[in-house]
Amino acid sequence: MTQSKDLYYMQMALELASRATILTSPNPKVGCVIVKDDVILGQGWTQEVGQAHAEVMALRDAASSGNDVRGATAYVTLEPCSHYGRTPPCANALIVAGLARVVAAVGDANPQVAGRGFAMLEAAGIAVAHGLLATEARAMNRGFFKRMETGKPWVRLKMAASLDGYTALPNGQSQWITGAEARLDGHHWRAKSDAILTGIGTVLADDPQMNVRLPEQDVLRQPRKFVLDSQLRTPVSAKLLRGASVNIAHAKRNPDAEESLRQAGANLLYLPDQHGAESQVDLPALMLVMGAQQINELHVEAGATLSGALIAAACVDELLLYLAPKLLGSGAGMFALPELQQLNQARELTVHDAKQLSDNTIRVLACFT
Amino acid sequence: MTQSKDLYYMQMALELASRATILTSPNPKVGCVIVKDDVILGQGWTQEVGQAHAEVMALRDAASSGNDVRGATAYVTLEPCSHYGRTPPCANALIVAGLARVVAAVGDANPQVAGRGFAMLEAAGIAVAHGLLATEARAMNRGFFKRMETGKPWVRLKMAASLDGYTALPNGQSQWITGAEARLDGHHWRAKSDAILTGIGTVLADDPQMNVRLPEQDVLRQPRKFVLDSQLRTPVSAKLLRGASVNIAHAKRNPDAEESLRQAGANLLYLPDQHGAESQVDLPALMLVMGAQQINELHVEAGATLSGALIAAACVDELLLYLAPKLLGSGAGMFALPELQQLNQARELTVHDAKQLSDNTIRVLACFT
Repeated sequence: MTQSKDLYYMQMALELASRATILTSPNPKVGCVIVKDDVILGQGWTQEVGQAHAEVMALRDAASSGNDVRGATAYVTLEPCSHYGRTPPCANALIVAGLARVVAAVGDANPQVAGRGFAMLEAAGIAVAHGLLATEARAMNRGFFKRMETGKPWVRLKMAASLDGYTALPNGQSQWITGAEARLDGHHWRAKSDAILTGIGTVLADDPQMNVRLPEQDVLRQPRKFVLDSQLRTPVSAKLLRGASVNIAHAKRNPDAEESLRQAGANLLYLPDQHGAESQVDLPALMLVMGAQQINELHVEAGATLSGALIAAACVDELLLYLAPKLLGSGAGMFALPELQQLNQARELTVHDAKQLSDNTIRVLACFT
Repeated sequence: MTQSKDLYYMQMALELASRATILTSPNPKVGCVIVKDDVILGQGWTQEVGQAHAEVMALRDAASSGNDVRGATAYVTLEPCSHYGRTPPCANALIVAGLARVVAAVGDANPQVAGRGFAMLEAAGIAVAHGLLATEARAMNRGFFKRMETGKPWVRLKMAASLDGYTALPNGQSQWITGAEARLDGHHWRAKSDAILTGIGTVLADDPQMNVRLPEQDVLRQPRKFVLDSQLRTPVSAKLLRGASVNIAHAKRNPDAEESLRQAGANLLYLPDQHGAESQVDLPALMLVMGAQQINELHVEAGATLSGALIAAACVDELLLYLAPKLLGSGAGMFALPELQQLNQARELTVHDAKQLSDNTIRVLACFT
């Protein structure tokens, strides 16, 4: 019975966590519910970065209702933090408030926390349990966990193609392969991301804005922009240079081009790969740079060349595929990958969602295994 | 209230229709429920071809329970037949039984019936209504309606590919792109079909058996086999020649090959196209031949050449696509189609189902619009 009550309240905490916005980033989305004798005393979720975490919000909620939380149980979707970061440690707040028990879904992967939150609580005589709905709690913050564990963001790569796998006609025509709902859906995925990456091929061909275009209330902030441009061919007139936080990763030194692009507002990242030819950007290094910039989730919208290179370099975690209900018969493929000799060499994925949008496009979400 | 009761009983009749087996073919699957004063007096569905239709089964069901159907309403998913075919007309049976009202989902497309069933009933003083759940009733017998309206079968084309649209590696390797559940699912679609069509390319490359391989209780009969083999290259040792009902469509006369294949049990169909070069089979004519053989549903499993030719000739109604969760990057495409100059020339489809099978394959069902 305690077990099923714990499950019930942890599901509630997860639901509360889902109310947190992208503005919590780079912090994870966390939910907290405080319960005593089957009465809910307080609820909270992570506020935008620098503001209160879920536990503190739940304690404040209880206090504002005049509820006494001494001896209560707190259900939190992540181990309470133990360090002074942008805010004081939540573990402290729970101890001071006199909680008797803390049930956490999953331990924090942040090396500054990682078990220390639980240890602080236990040292103060609070009963601690964790592991309940851990998979769900991790999935809600997959970007945060990926960055904490590898130093790199969770990378989602978007691609749109016809049902028979072509992104453009043989003559290059490619605009509007998918319909209006697929494009709108794509902007929602952009909005959930900390950064967007594209390649110089797309910049030169389409001059994209690389921003989120949704009704105002759905755009809490614009993601940062990254362009992979090995030879620094981005024109200073490129639309993507409008707005802040533009980063251009390059492999070749070119002081004049670098200076022009800097004056146009871009941040330059010189990341040549290990081959010494200054021809290619070191993609895993770029991911580490993004991780260091506290980017949890990266959204990639690029052509077959960069998309294929990222997949081949094992830099992609997830595919977001829009398959339009039409047949092209021939044309450009989705991903430029090294030619395989055996089927068992093919990169395998696990599909976690396949659904039909109202414009008849099929949207597939799949993770590399 | 009458309206919602009518809907309720018609849904029941559709559910009864779905119990009919493929052995009703070439007759449509029909369900019938007889109701009076909110009491169900009898239920029935079409038996295998030559046996009783749904209305007669429902009348028998009522009689065997001692129920008096005089003054009752019969809900049927298709207009009762009016002609002496393999069985006497059902409209007659309903009149003799003294029904007061008949509600049909849809009129029969069979020109031997087409409104005459309703006329017979009305002439006998029975109230007739139709149009309720007509779309659902047509969908259940789409092959039958297509054949009645066009003389050609409903053509479903199966194709399996990687998520990025390739059916084989550049070196030709293609076996087992999809997993076990997708293959099993494919056999269920074969089992629901009246005939299977493949091309000589597949015969020479894979030597397929072209039969249904499922547990015995799921195989009520083997579909007829059709091979498109313009130049009569099918070897007499081909596995598909084992078993009955093998048809080979060709475009070139070759008396020796024709005789050998006939002796191996095949029926030869000489169907050269209109260009007079004896190089290609006339695909629309082949569809008419199949329609004349009372094939309602044709299942196509062929390579890119024949599949593309059938699509280009507007001979395909529906795609059954299995997308395996892997990336090949390059290789053979799904359909060999004429090259497009404009995206708006692309063949459009309406997706009616997209789901993830347990082996992670995505199955898409889409109809050409």
